[in-house]
Amino acid sequence: MNQPTAPPRSTLVVTAHAGDFVWRAGGAIALAAARGERVTIACLTFGERGESASAWRAGKTLDEIKALRRDEAERAAAVLGAEIRFYDAGDYPLVPTPELTDRLVGLLRAVQPDVVLTHPADDPYNGDHPAAHRMAMEARVLAQAVGYPGPGEIIGAPPVFCFEPHQPEMSGFRPEVLLDITEVWDTKRAAMECLGAQQHLWDYYTDLAVRRGVQLRRNAGPNLGLAHTAMAEAYMRPFPQVARELA
Amino acid sequence: MNQPTAPPRSTLVVTAHAGDFVWRAGGAIALAAARGERVTIACLTFGERGESASAWRAGKTLDEIKALRRDEAERAAAVLGAEIRFYDAGDYPLVPTPELTDRLVGLLRAVQPDVVLTHPADDPYNGDHPAAHRMAMEARVLAQAVGYPGPGEIIGAPPVFCFEPHQPEMSGFRPEVLLDITEVWDTKRAAMECLGAQQHLWDYYTDLAVRRGVQLRRNAGPNLGLAHTAMAEAYMRPFPQVARELA
Amino acid sequence: MNQPTAPPRSTLVVTAHAGDFVWRAGGAIALAAARGERVTIACLTFGERGESASAWRAGKTLDEIKALRRDEAERAAAVLGAEIRFYDAGDYPLVPTPELTDRLVGLLRAVQPDVVLTHPADDPYNGDHPAAHRMAMEARVLAQAVGYPGPGEIIGAPPVFCFEPHQPEMSGFRPEVLLDITEVWDTKRAAMECLGAQQHLWDYYTDLAVRRGVQLRRNAGPNLGLAHTAMAEAYMRPFPQVARELA
Amino acid sequence: MNQPTAPPRSTLVVTAHAGDFVWRAGGAIALAAARGERVTIACLTFGERGESASAWRAGKTLDEIKALRRDEAERAAAVLGAEIRFYDAGDYPLVPTPELTDRLVGLLRAVQPDVVLTHPADDPYNGDHPAAHRMAMEARVLAQAVGYPGPGEIIGAPPVFCFEPHQPEMSGFRPEVLLDITEVWDTKRAAMECLGAQQHLWDYYTDLAVRRGVQLRRNAGPNLGLAHTAMAEAYMRPFPQVARELA
Amino acid sequence: MNQPTAPPRSTLVVTAHAGDFVWRAGGAIALAAARGERVTIACLTFGERGESASAWRAGKTLDEIKALRRDEAERAAAVLGAEIRFYDAGDYPLVPTPELTDRLVGLLRAVQPDVVLTHPADDPYNGDHPAAHRMAMEARVLAQAVGYPGPGEIIGAPPVFCFEPHQPEMSGFRPEVLLDITEVWDTKRAAMECLGAQQHLWDYYTDLAVRRGVQLRRNAGPNLGLAHTAMAEAYMRPFPQVARELA
Amino acid sequence: MNQPTAPPRSTLVVTAHAGDFVWRAGGAIALAAARGERVTIACLTFGERGESASAWRAGKTLDEIKALRRDEAERAAAVLGAEIRFYDAGDYPLVPTPELTDRLVGLLRAVQPDVVLTHPADDPYNGDHPAAHRMAMEARVLAQAVGYPGPGEIIGAPPVFCFEPHQPEMSGFRPEVLLDITEVWDTKRAAMECLGAQQHLWDYYTDLAVRRGVQLRRNAGPNLGLAHTAMAEAYMRPFPQVARELA
Repeated sequence: MNQPTAPPRSTLVVTAHAGDFVWRAGGAIALAAARGERVTIACLTFGERGESASAWRAGKTLDEIKALRRDEAERAAAVLGAEIRFYDAGDYPLVPTPELTDRLVGLLRAVQPDVVLTHPADDPYNGDHPAAHRMAMEARVLAQAVGYPGPGEIIGAPPVFCFEPHQPEMSGFRPEVLLDITEVWDTKRAAMECLGAQQHLWDYYTDLAVRRGVQLRRNAGPNLGLAHTAMAEAYMRPFPQVARELA
Repeated sequence: MNQPTAPPRSTLVVTAHAGDFVWRAGGAIALAAARGERVTIACLTFGERGESASAWRAGKTLDEIKALRRDEAERAAAVLGAEIRFYDAGDYPLVPTPELTDRLVGLLRAVQPDVVLTHPADDPYNGDHPAAHRMAMEARVLAQAVGYPGPGEIIGAPPVFCFEPHQPEMSGFRPEVLLDITEVWDTKRAAMECLGAQQHLWDYYTDLAVRRGVQLRRNAGPNLGLAHTAMAEAYMRPFPQVARELA
Repeated sequence: MNQPTAPPRSTLVVTAHAGDFVWRAGGAIALAAARGERVTIACLTFGERGESASAWRAGKTLDEIKALRRDEAERAAAVLGAEIRFYDAGDYPLVPTPELTDRLVGLLRAVQPDVVLTHPADDPYNGDHPAAHRMAMEARVLAQAVGYPGPGEIIGAPPVFCFEPHQPEMSGFRPEVLLDITEVWDTKRAAMECLGAQQHLWDYYTDLAVRRGVQLRRNAGPNLGLAHTAMAEAYMRPFPQVARELA
Repeated sequence: MNQPTAPPRSTLVVTAHAGDFVWRAGGAIALAAARGERVTIACLTFGERGESASAWRAGKTLDEIKALRRDEAERAAAVLGAEIRFYDAGDYPLVPTPELTDRLVGLLRAVQPDVVLTHPADDPYNGDHPAAHRMAMEARVLAQAVGYPGPGEIIGAPPVFCFEPHQPEMSGFRPEVLLDITEVWDTKRAAMECLGAQQHLWDYYTDLAVRRGVQLRRNAGPNLGLAHTAMAEAYMRPFPQVARELA
Repeated sequence: MNQPTAPPRSTLVVTAHAGDFVWRAGGAIALAAARGERVTIACLTFGERGESASAWRAGKTLDEIKALRRDEAERAAAVLGAEIRFYDAGDYPLVPTPELTDRLVGLLRAVQPDVVLTHPADDPYNGDHPAAHRMAMEARVLAQAVGYPGPGEIIGAPPVFCFEPHQPEMSGFRPEVLLDITEVWDTKRAAMECLGAQQHLWDYYTDLAVRRGVQLRRNAGPNLGLAHTAMAEAYMRPFPQVARELA
Repeated sequence: MNQPTAPPRSTLVVTAHAGDFVWRAGGAIALAAARGERVTIACLTFGERGESASAWRAGKTLDEIKALRRDEAERAAAVLGAEIRFYDAGDYPLVPTPELTDRLVGLLRAVQPDVVLTHPADDPYNGDHPAAHRMAMEARVLAQAVGYPGPGEIIGAPPVFCFEPHQPEMSGFRPEVLLDITEVWDTKRAAMECLGAQQHLWDYYTDLAVRRGVQLRRNAGPNLGLAHTAMAEAYMRPFPQVARELA
């Protein structure tokens, strides 16, 4: 379908906090980047209040913590092969505003994503995640309307994939897509290890990738051609899959 | 992934009545056949009691009606490019039995499907459809077990697609996959026209394909490269999609 | 709509146990009878094992208990103005069979109901109720098919109303219809008092009627013209309401 | 129930955009008007940004588009026999505010509706529709409270009917009421044809009315007395139906 | 687990209106107080507009009504043995704000609750209840974060219990906990009788306690050792129960 | 509550296959046994066809496999401190029958459980698990009825806990109870290691216990007094918790 002169495929990741894209979508990002595609990460906040407990306990200031989380996130994004943008909108709580949504519309029109990744709709343990979801979903609709003002071309209706929350069953999360990230697993692990403030999560999310990999293999048809062990990430699809073949 | 000597992909369609595969999955069948793949249709009943009202009103006997529905279905399957098998298990009601489920296990092991299509779990207007669903789902699990007796090799875990019931919203049906059947639409229409006993449905299911086509375009990302008009079929996925790329 | 020679409207109530129609639908039955309509109650069992604890404790035999429950139910039906038929299918558990379903098909074709009342789909405290629901729902579909054998004319698709289970919230019950039974309340209470074996429920179901009446008034529009106090019964509708006016 | 001197019944329709009342509730409006009842339509926005793509592509200004959509909507309302009011609250996004909700409270108290029609709670393709729903629902509750300030008498608790969204299955829409609009179909079609900016929807919503009509007939009891073909609109009821008879 | 010097257990109740804590959680409050525990009630509003109809009809002013409701609530709290705080945030509608949520964070940190009680997430009849729920839930998460500014120690993750709304089935309420309040029933009734403005609810909520008591006994295992009659309150648990024993 | 002469508490575990009780409820069993309580495990089948793939591949016969699984299960039960009974009802599929249900009624009356553990209602990957659930739930209701024939005293209504399926999110499983099994973890691990036929699951279920332990700590209130690391099992409660205190 892509003409010879077509731009590379583009993926946009909209997240609430600086570390989310690594734990939840690092494999998808690394896979896209490895295929030579463009990946842009929008970090709405640094997670400075809600996800930096160890830094606060160490006595750091708000500005120091923001700088620390930004640095970590930039290094992780570089490892994964993605561009990252920070919006510094303030976390705990992240408050949706028309202005922030409008900035996301501008970003959507600028990067013209073929795919959008973001948090799922519900998370009773962290209200910032649903807030980011709502803004990403609203901005995606607004960016499609020729009548919505602002620079850039309108976008189509790119598919959305919602990544896994920390407590999936309590958040209504059901794995609707199991993405095989085996071949980029080392890259994802390296990106995770950039996040020194949350070291206790390195093994936790490694175990999760193993478990999702077991399920991937359990749901795979006879001709998938998978090696024996797989690492995987799970996603939900809020919109129907458009397909040319059932597979 | 397929080696040069790999057999062609195989699709198995398990349906309750003789006409179901045409209205609900004719496009998917024609697409697979057009790609040179093998498609096998298991008709558990002829729909002789529940979906042959005009024939009954015309005074035909049960045997005449079965023969009529078999003939229609065979011609429609031929138009679509699929093989069809009849189980004559009796409709209205179709009663699940271990014997019938066991025959489906044997069929699954014989055709080694890469994909299974069947009815969805719920249909308050026709209990035969959920009965066929339950048997297809159970047989698919049993056929994976090396300990389940019978000839043939065990199967993997082929993905399942549930096709659209007659009253989707009342049956808990949500389009999770929109399949573009534009290029085989004429073939599906020709297959529908083999079903003379249900002529009132020809236009009904043409309208449905248009409506699902509108939704397909409404959900398509920017680079899908679709022509302006599309015809589509809708499916649910009871198991997660296994993917190597988010798209 | 009804021609001068049209038969009176017909209501069919399909219940698991001898007392169910009184507690759960006595008001609806009395209302229909008071309008001169025909009401037929199908009692699939006497509730001899599962809902006759005091009689068992009093040392009565199975046959004595059946006779006792039949007598109570006949008197209650007479008070309400309805005809009652017993199927003696055995309770605790009530086991759905093709034969019993077939007898219900025959009954549906015989009484040609304009309305069908039965238990709702779920009740974790009493499996006989869902069993009766499933048979009533299946028989209603089969009775519509000209190809389903048996005497009598086929029926249309009469609306179904599912009455309230004993623990509504645990059974997924949501009041979708609140029926004003104020004017026949005394009749319902008199019918309840025929059921000496379950005397502890008289006040319980009186309180329920008061509570549903409060909700009826809380949901009533400005012009309903209700008196200050109302007694009500709650129902679910598994099929859409067909209407000529939104009201 | 209505006394001779009672005012005619009153229907209030609260919609997000100028065209919504035609596509989604034109039949219900025309039916009510044909019975001599009062119908008032509250258009919260003109749909100037989100539903006027062709006008934007033709190079019109925001003010021109608003005037165009207003003119279309006024003509369509006149065809249907309804009064229409515009709130010009700005679409894409329509932002709920206490002020706009308060204006709806005033309208509810002014027109004293027997019935309220509005959008359903969910629509992942258009956030303005749920926003209108939430304001309509909140205003209806506030207008019932004697302590809520403002002119006019408090209202009762009029039933609410939510009309069908563009992609019903993806919006959690289940047809709970099927309204027979056959006798006013020509009027609805004429109203649709007032909306020149959305000509591609004329046939789409005609097909929908046919499909809902098929379902209406499929769900109708034996004595409905319907002619062979029906046109219909589908609605959800968020509150229980209050009834004097099960039918 | 509690050391000899541990403070008494602490319960925080967050409610929308002045009377809510009595009808919905009076038993739980009285039980805790009777065990010598600390109970703090946060009343976000007096219910001055939405739940004081009789006072408005009697011609009282807004300030008079607030004073009246405050006085009633203070007396009821005293009867139950709890401390009460008023926030006077304005009802009908109660509008969530960052400032009010922040005050709740301060309260949570001040009282260090072992248990939080509040409204459930949904109530289509009264939007103030879900608004209070959302603020209570958000404040509970924010109060756990060391990075969230303000005085006091951070809290743990106390379990939350959502009390029963006025129309449970329409609000998605399912009794997940049935609390035996038999031994404090007289206290709850005495507290209810402090609420002279809502005298019609005294018997209504007595009947509810009887009905929940019947269900409590119906769900109790063999060794519960309950007396024959029980009074009960129902709650939902939005978070998992943490247990050392299955019972 | 328990009198001095009261028998010890009794737990009944109803499972489909020989290994289920170890992976899914080994911690709960070991905890109860460690408290001196009686635990009885009912294994409806040996899992001889569906969960013994490696034995089949090793060429063993059906009888050899049954003996092997029985031996493993007996050793694991002994490690946990429980009694085990085998019903040899045949797996893949496990077919519910009145006779098997009746045997469970007898068992319930014999052991008079204070708590019942079994599979949850849904598992799309293994139909035997829901079949065992349905029989356990039905038998528990029948065993309460004095009119249901058979030896032994009727039972009360013991609470039910449904243990975690292999793919929780796909089976509608939500952790409603998180049970702290830290203190018996070594016992559970030792019991798992009795199951040589499923060695690949040892680490899988160890990881699961860690993950549920993390969630347990994340949901624990301030005074739980837990050590830093916890191992846990998750359960659903199909019936309301009956409580004397909210905690």
